[in-house]
Amino acid sequence: MDVDVAIIGLGPAGLQAAIHAARKKVKVVVLGKSESSALNKAEIENYFGIVSAKGEDLLRIGREQAQRFGASLVEEDVIKLAKEEDVFKIVTETDREVRAKAVILAMGIRRVKLNVPGEKEFLGRGVSYCASCDGGFFRDRAVAVIGEESEAAESAILLTEYASQVYWVHRELKVSPQMLEKASGTKVEMVPGDPARILGEKSVTGLDLKDGRHLDVQGVFVALGAKGSMELALELGILPDPSGKITVDENCRTEMEMVYACGDVTGSPWQLARAVGQGAVAGDNAAKAVRQQEKS
Amino acid sequence: MDVDVAIIGLGPAGLQAAIHAARKKVKVVVLGKSESSALNKAEIENYFGIVSAKGEDLLRIGREQAQRFGASLVEEDVIKLAKEEDVFKIVTETDREVRAKAVILAMGIRRVKLNVPGEKEFLGRGVSYCASCDGGFFRDRAVAVIGEESEAAESAILLTEYASQVYWVHRELKVSPQMLEKASGTKVEMVPGDPARILGEKSVTGLDLKDGRHLDVQGVFVALGAKGSMELALELGILPDPSGKITVDENCRTEMEMVYACGDVTGSPWQLARAVGQGAVAGDNAAKAVRQQEKS
Repeated sequence: MDVDVAIIGLGPAGLQAAIHAARKKVKVVVLGKSESSALNKAEIENYFGIVSAKGEDLLRIGREQAQRFGASLVEEDVIKLAKEEDVFKIVTETDREVRAKAVILAMGIRRVKLNVPGEKEFLGRGVSYCASCDGGFFRDRAVAVIGEESEAAESAILLTEYASQVYWVHRELKVSPQMLEKASGTKVEMVPGDPARILGEKSVTGLDLKDGRHLDVQGVFVALGAKGSMELALELGILPDPSGKITVDENCRTEMEMVYACGDVTGSPWQLARAVGQGAVAGDNAAKAVRQQEKS
Repeated sequence: MDVDVAIIGLGPAGLQAAIHAARKKVKVVVLGKSESSALNKAEIENYFGIVSAKGEDLLRIGREQAQRFGASLVEEDVIKLAKEEDVFKIVTETDREVRAKAVILAMGIRRVKLNVPGEKEFLGRGVSYCASCDGGFFRDRAVAVIGEESEAAESAILLTEYASQVYWVHRELKVSPQMLEKASGTKVEMVPGDPARILGEKSVTGLDLKDGRHLDVQGVFVALGAKGSMELALELGILPDPSGKITVDENCRTEMEMVYACGDVTGSPWQLARAVGQGAVAGDNAAKAVRQQEKS
């Protein structure tokens, strides 16, 4: 399969990039698994123009839009990405080969999992990986934040603005004294301990610790950091910065010619609106670059 | 009225900024006229998650969302913006005074008008100011592009990818020989002349020139450039760059502390998705900055 623009990632950034590239009449393919997008389990109410929607519905509509503009979707993970002379060669899990003139990296990030019973089951129903995204849903409720580093501290502090009670569950703290002091001036309650199980019925009702203690909470924020799906970027020779994100300029160009990036791989805030905005810019510019290459 | 974050501009960038700032529980006001947003007359089909919508409906929903998150809306134009010590002082057309800790500039840009009969009447029904936004609506139709400079040349060339016929109407050309050569290799037909009137019924059916000639077209693209509403930025001491846009970093910060910018004022592509994405980033960061100021 030969295309102009190959987009890696079937989330909102990748799909918006596909819409904007395909509008410019270049040949576009989007590769990835729909189910991998973090948007799947989200309830969205902070995206301009849509009062409230399920993330999975937005993704379904986004896929239809991308196809309507002429993009092809391939529901397969990319396992190899290399540059061979002027062409990018992409190989998927079924050994499908795609050759592209430009590549857009939109794989998103994977939150580090807690790996306890109930975590997967109650994702989006009390379990969250993003305090700044979902904190507002926990007004006047009790929540637990789980983590050892600054992300956990920041999440706990932020959640005090919404929640009636914030437990910060941790084994060993790895945060600066300044950060600890910030947290100590708030209603954050330190809970040294190890999570065993998230309880719930329709949604989260509590958190059990390994020593038998129980916390009555309606929300559990897992703040153990994020791992970018950066293997593909690394294969190309693009190095994430120290915080793990791919650096892009205002046109969503990476350091490598004809490689663009958009969405959560380029850093926080991990917000739908930001992903979509960057997707539009990356798609627009990648298509323009292909057109210019053809003319020269 | 004392607020944390004052947003100037009631378009999609300003409203998304309001949503994201207000979510962080800071006091937010948005000032401007809803009717000024370029989105008003647009039909949107390239925005992730919404198959097709009228711009005015999206704006109405966006205003409701911003208010639901706690932002106040003031439907008045801002006529004065100044920094007095650590506070920004804003005055509206009714002499209302707002004092804010941070300001977000989201006034958009105003397309230069052609000022002929039919232009206003058929806006969004054949008349457009943005070939890259609306070109796709003119597949296999005839269109006229009006303008003298590179924007007109680029619009004409881009439109050849959709339209069956592209007339480039101009008085005096002010483009580079390279640009002219690019256009000459396409189906762009040069029409020296002066537009007199845009004709139509439900939508555009033709363009009359002052010398009596008539062009059978279903679309008229006015490509006379854009004027930013930059007076307010200039009053603050923020200078637009040579192309007329306000320079921002990846966090939508301008060169001046506590002043952010988002949407069309920061440059092209003038796309809803990009405006919304930048709005989220500007709102998020302005609110964070206010919080940090309070703590220090």
